[in-house]
Amino acid sequence: MTRALLRTYIDGEQALTETRVDRETDHEVWLRGDIPVENPVVNYRWLLDGVPGGYQWLNGEGAHPHDVTDAADFRITTHPAPPSWAAEAVLYQIFPDRFAKSVERPAPDWAIPQAWDDPVVGTGPETPLQYFGGDLDGITAHLDHIASTGANTVYLTPIFPGRSNHRYDATTFDHVDPLLGGDEALARLSDAVHARGMRLMGDLTTNHCGAAHEWFQRAFADASCPEAAYFTFTRHPDEYVCWFGHPSLPKFDHRNAGLRRALYEGPDSTVAKWLGAHGLDGWRIDVANMTGRLGTVDLNHLVATTLRATMAQANPESLLLAEHSHDASHDLLGDGWHGVMNYAGFARPLWQWLKRPEPVTFDPGPFTPWARFPATSMVAAMRAFTAAQPWRATAHALNLVGSHDVPRIATFLGDDGLVTVAFGLLASMPGIPMLWAGDEIGQQGVNGEDGRRPFPWHDPGQWDTRRLATNRALFAARAESPALRHGGLRWLAVGDDAVTFLREAPEERVLVHAARAEHVPVRLASALLGSELIGLGATADIRADTDGTVTLPADGPAFSMWRC
Amino acid sequence: MTRALLRTYIDGEQALTETRVDRETDHEVWLRGDIPVENPVVNYRWLLDGVPGGYQWLNGEGAHPHDVTDAADFRITTHPAPPSWAAEAVLYQIFPDRFAKSVERPAPDWAIPQAWDDPVVGTGPETPLQYFGGDLDGITAHLDHIASTGANTVYLTPIFPGRSNHRYDATTFDHVDPLLGGDEALARLSDAVHARGMRLMGDLTTNHCGAAHEWFQRAFADASCPEAAYFTFTRHPDEYVCWFGHPSLPKFDHRNAGLRRALYEGPDSTVAKWLGAHGLDGWRIDVANMTGRLGTVDLNHLVATTLRATMAQANPESLLLAEHSHDASHDLLGDGWHGVMNYAGFARPLWQWLKRPEPVTFDPGPFTPWARFPATSMVAAMRAFTAAQPWRATAHALNLVGSHDVPRIATFLGDDGLVTVAFGLLASMPGIPMLWAGDEIGQQGVNGEDGRRPFPWHDPGQWDTRRLATNRALFAARAESPALRHGGLRWLAVGDDAVTFLREAPEERVLVHAARAEHVPVRLASALLGSELIGLGATADIRADTDGTVTLPADGPAFSMWRC
Repeated sequence: MTRALLRTYIDGEQALTETRVDRETDHEVWLRGDIPVENPVVNYRWLLDGVPGGYQWLNGEGAHPHDVTDAADFRITTHPAPPSWAAEAVLYQIFPDRFAKSVERPAPDWAIPQAWDDPVVGTGPETPLQYFGGDLDGITAHLDHIASTGANTVYLTPIFPGRSNHRYDATTFDHVDPLLGGDEALARLSDAVHARGMRLMGDLTTNHCGAAHEWFQRAFADASCPEAAYFTFTRHPDEYVCWFGHPSLPKFDHRNAGLRRALYEGPDSTVAKWLGAHGLDGWRIDVANMTGRLGTVDLNHLVATTLRATMAQANPESLLLAEHSHDASHDLLGDGWHGVMNYAGFARPLWQWLKRPEPVTFDPGPFTPWARFPATSMVAAMRAFTAAQPWRATAHALNLVGSHDVPRIATFLGDDGLVTVAFGLLASMPGIPMLWAGDEIGQQGVNGEDGRRPFPWHDPGQWDTRRLATNRALFAARAESPALRHGGLRWLAVGDDAVTFLREAPEERVLVHAARAEHVPVRLASALLGSELIGLGATADIRADTDGTVTLPADGPAFSMWRC
Repeated sequence: MTRALLRTYIDGEQALTETRVDRETDHEVWLRGDIPVENPVVNYRWLLDGVPGGYQWLNGEGAHPHDVTDAADFRITTHPAPPSWAAEAVLYQIFPDRFAKSVERPAPDWAIPQAWDDPVVGTGPETPLQYFGGDLDGITAHLDHIASTGANTVYLTPIFPGRSNHRYDATTFDHVDPLLGGDEALARLSDAVHARGMRLMGDLTTNHCGAAHEWFQRAFADASCPEAAYFTFTRHPDEYVCWFGHPSLPKFDHRNAGLRRALYEGPDSTVAKWLGAHGLDGWRIDVANMTGRLGTVDLNHLVATTLRATMAQANPESLLLAEHSHDASHDLLGDGWHGVMNYAGFARPLWQWLKRPEPVTFDPGPFTPWARFPATSMVAAMRAFTAAQPWRATAHALNLVGSHDVPRIATFLGDDGLVTVAFGLLASMPGIPMLWAGDEIGQQGVNGEDGRRPFPWHDPGQWDTRRLATNRALFAARAESPALRHGGLRWLAVGDDAVTFLREAPEERVLVHAARAEHVPVRLASALLGSELIGLGATADIRADTDGTVTLPADGPAFSMWRC
C-alpha cells in the first residue's frame, strides 16, 4: 500500500482526505486523518491505494477491490449520545406474571388462574390467559438474585393493565396494573433498584394498544370523539386496522397529533410521565419496526425522534431501545432509537452457528427458516448488520440469546457446552447484553410462550446451578473488563467451528475464542498478543510457544477469554 | 434446493411468500410468487432453502450463505413510470458553444473571441472565456448527422445566458441566450427535433446560479428583497454560501418557498415554462447530488419530488435525469429523478477495466484515483450499484463513456479496439446511452475542458470515419433490438479480460461478449444459447460445436454480439 485516504461525503459530494501515521508498533501501523463533520451523520471509508490490483475500499464489511456503494460505510453520528450508563448496562428481562409473587390476589375476569407450579401451556387459546400472579414486589424481593447474575438493569415487559398475561394489549397507560401492585409497587421497585445503583426499564406498545384500552373504547363508542382519530377505522366501529389482523390489537395512527401528545410528545405524555427518580430509566418500544408504518404512510422516523426528544427532556439519562428483528440501520442514525433488539446482527447468526445438526422441530418464532451455518456465515452476517449502522448503534444493540418470544436457549441448543458458548459470546461481544430471566438456571421451553415458566424459587431441583455459576463468572468478567464493555472489535480467525476476536480498549485488550466443536488449533502471532495470556472467568492462562506463536485450545464446545 | 421463498417487507415486518414453478425448459426452471404491494416501494429477495450449507439469500448482488441487510434487495417502485420514450432514448450531448455555428455574432463583454479552428485551452483562466459562437440553429442544421449516430434525443448543456462558455452560471432562467439565437432559435430547434420524432432535453442548475443572475443581483443589492432569501448570506452582501467556494456560483437555499416556486414548483416555474411542444421534453439537473444539501439541512428529496411533480403536470411525457457521480440509490426510488448520470455504476467501472496498464497522467476530473481493474472488479462494481436501486432506475440510468466533464474516451484509452469495446458496452447494457458529441468521430481531449473542441464540420481530416461507421453499426443494432433496449441482464462469464452476458426480452435474446485482450476462450452450453448465433452489427455468425458447446472468439480488444 502506498497511501491511505479517508473518503467522506459532504453535502452530497465525495471528499478525499490525506492521512498520516499516528503511531507504529512492531506489527501495526495506525493512520489518522481529520474528517470535516458538516452533516449530522458522516459516512466515511478508507481508500487503500497502491495495493495489488490498484486500490481497495475498506468499509465496515472489509476490503473491496472495486468501487462500492455507501451502504457499508463507517458512520459518525453527531446526535446526542446515549446515557453513559447504557454502555455499562446488562439487562435482566422479566415477564412480570412469571417471575415472583409477593402476595396472592384474586384472578381477573379474563384469566385462567394457575398455581405457581402448574405447567405452562405453550400453544393454544389458554396460552395468553394463564394467570400465575407474579407481581412487582416479587421482583423487588429478588434483586439480590438479579444482581448476582451480573445484570444491573431490570427490564420489565409491560406493566400496564391488559386482558392477557403478557399485557401487550394495554387497557390504559395511566397506571400500573393493580394485579402487579399498582403504581406504588412500581415506585417501591424503582426505589429499591436505584438504591442499588441499578436501573429500571419499561416496555411500551407504540404500534397498538388493546381493544379494551380506554382510548379505543371511546373511539369505538363515538366516531366523532378525539380518540377515534388515534386509530384507522375502515368502517366504524367494527372494521379497523389492527396488528397482523388481531382485532384485540388496534393499530395506532400516528398522523394524529392528539395521539402523539398523549403517547410520546411532550412532558404530559405517557412516555414522559413514567420516567424519573421513582419510575423508569428508559423504554423498550414494542413492535417499533412497524410503528407508524402502514401502506403509503411512514411516520416511523417522526415517532422515534419525537419519542427520543421527549425522553431527553424528561430525563436526559434515559435509554431508548426498540424491538426490531431485521435491518434497522436506517432507523439507527442516532436521532431516534439508541439501539434495537439485536436478533438480526447477533442472536440469529449465533443460533444458526450453534444449532444442532439435526432439524429443529421447535416453533421458530418470527424467524424462518432454520439452518446450521459455519462460523464464517455467522461472522459475515454480524459484520453485514454492524457495517450498516454507526458503531454507537452496535455498542447499544440489545444483544440476546433468548427472550420471551423465542425458544429457551437451553432447549434450543440441547447441550450445556454450546449454551456456555452462547452466553460467552453474549458476555464478550459489543452491545448491551440482555439476560432473559430463567436462562441463568437453565430453564426450558420449546417456544417463547412455553419458556415463560414461573421462576422455580422454591424448587432447587429445577435449578441448573452449574449454569448459574458459569454465567455469573462470564458476566463478572465482563463487569471487570473495560475492553469487553467498551472495546472495539477485531476478528482474528474465523473457521467453520471456531471464531477468535480481540476486544480492545485503551486500558486493556481481551482475546476471545469460541468453538462449537473440536477443531484445528488456531495459532496466532505472539507479537500481536504478547507472550502471557491471563485467563478470565474459568479460562486457564496460556503462554506463547517458543516459535513466536500462541496456540489456542482446540477442544469444543468451549469458550475462553484472556487478558493480553 | 428444496424450495424458494420470496421475502418481502411490509410496513416494517418481514413476510415470506411461497413460490411455484411457472415454466421449465431443458436447462432452466422459472419460479413465480405473488408479492403483496402495500408500500410505495417494495423490497424483496429470494430465499433458496435446502441448498448445501442450509439456505442462501439471493439479492441483486448474488447469493449469500448468511443473513443479509436489505441494502441489495430487489426493489419494486409503484411511483409513476418514466415516459415510455425514455427506454428507447439515446442521448446526444451537445455543448452549444462548440457544436455548430449558424451565423457570426459579436462576442459578449466577458468573452475571448475565437475562430472555429482555434485551439481550445484546457486549463487556465481563459478556459471558460473562450467563445467560439456555436448556436442553436447550428444544431438544427445538423440533425441529420445526429440522427445518423443512432441518437434520438438531443441534450443541450445550459442554454440560458451566462458569463462563461459553459453557461452553468446562468444570469437568468427567463430566456434563452441571444448568443445562441434566443427563444426563437430554441423553438425552431424543438420543432425540427420533434418533426423527426426525436426529443430535446435541457440542463438546469438547481444547486446554484451565476453571481450575475438577476435574482442574486437583487439579493446582493438589497438584503430585504424576496430574492435575498433564495441564497444563504453569512454576511450580506459579500459573504455567502457558494458551490465549492466559487463566488461566481452562489448556492440556492431551498428552504425558501419563493425560490421553489420560481425555479421548480408549479406551472409558472422555470422548470415548467420550458417544457412542451415547442420547448423541452425533459431536464438534466446539474449538481443534483448537492442540491438542497448543506450542513444540517437536507431538502434534496423535496427538491427532486417537487420538480418531478411539476414536470408531470406540465408534461406527463417528460424525463428527469440528474447529475450524480456516487451512490444515488436513496434518491432513485421513483418519486424524484428517473435516473442519474451513471458514472458510478457504468462509466467508472468500465474505464477502470479498459484503462491502459501504464499510469494515466490526465486530469481525472472529479474522480480519484485511477486504477486498472480486472473485469471481475468492473462487474462487481456494476452489480453493487445496480443492486442498490430499483431496476427501473438502472434501465433509466444515463450511461456514458465520456462527457464534457471528463477526458475524451479516444484519448483516455488510446486504442481504437478498446474504444470499440467501450461503445459496444454503451450500446448493449441496460440504461439510456449518452453520446458526447464528437466522440463518434474520435475527438481527442485530455480533460473535460480540452475535449470541448469545436466540431470539425469542414475538416474531414479530423474525422475518424472508421470510428463513426463502427459506432453507427453498434447503435443501429441497439435500435433494432428489443433485447438491447428493454431486456434483462444475465452475467454468464466474467474473467479478468473478458465478460459475457445475455440481454433477454420476451421477443429476443442477445448474447454480448466484450474483451479487452486476447483471453482463454469462453465456452458456453449450446442448450442455453441454441446452436446458431446470428451476429449483430459487425459480428460474424457462429455455430455450436458438435460437443454441445459454443466457443466465443478469444481475440481482443474485441466486441461481439449475437441474436440467439
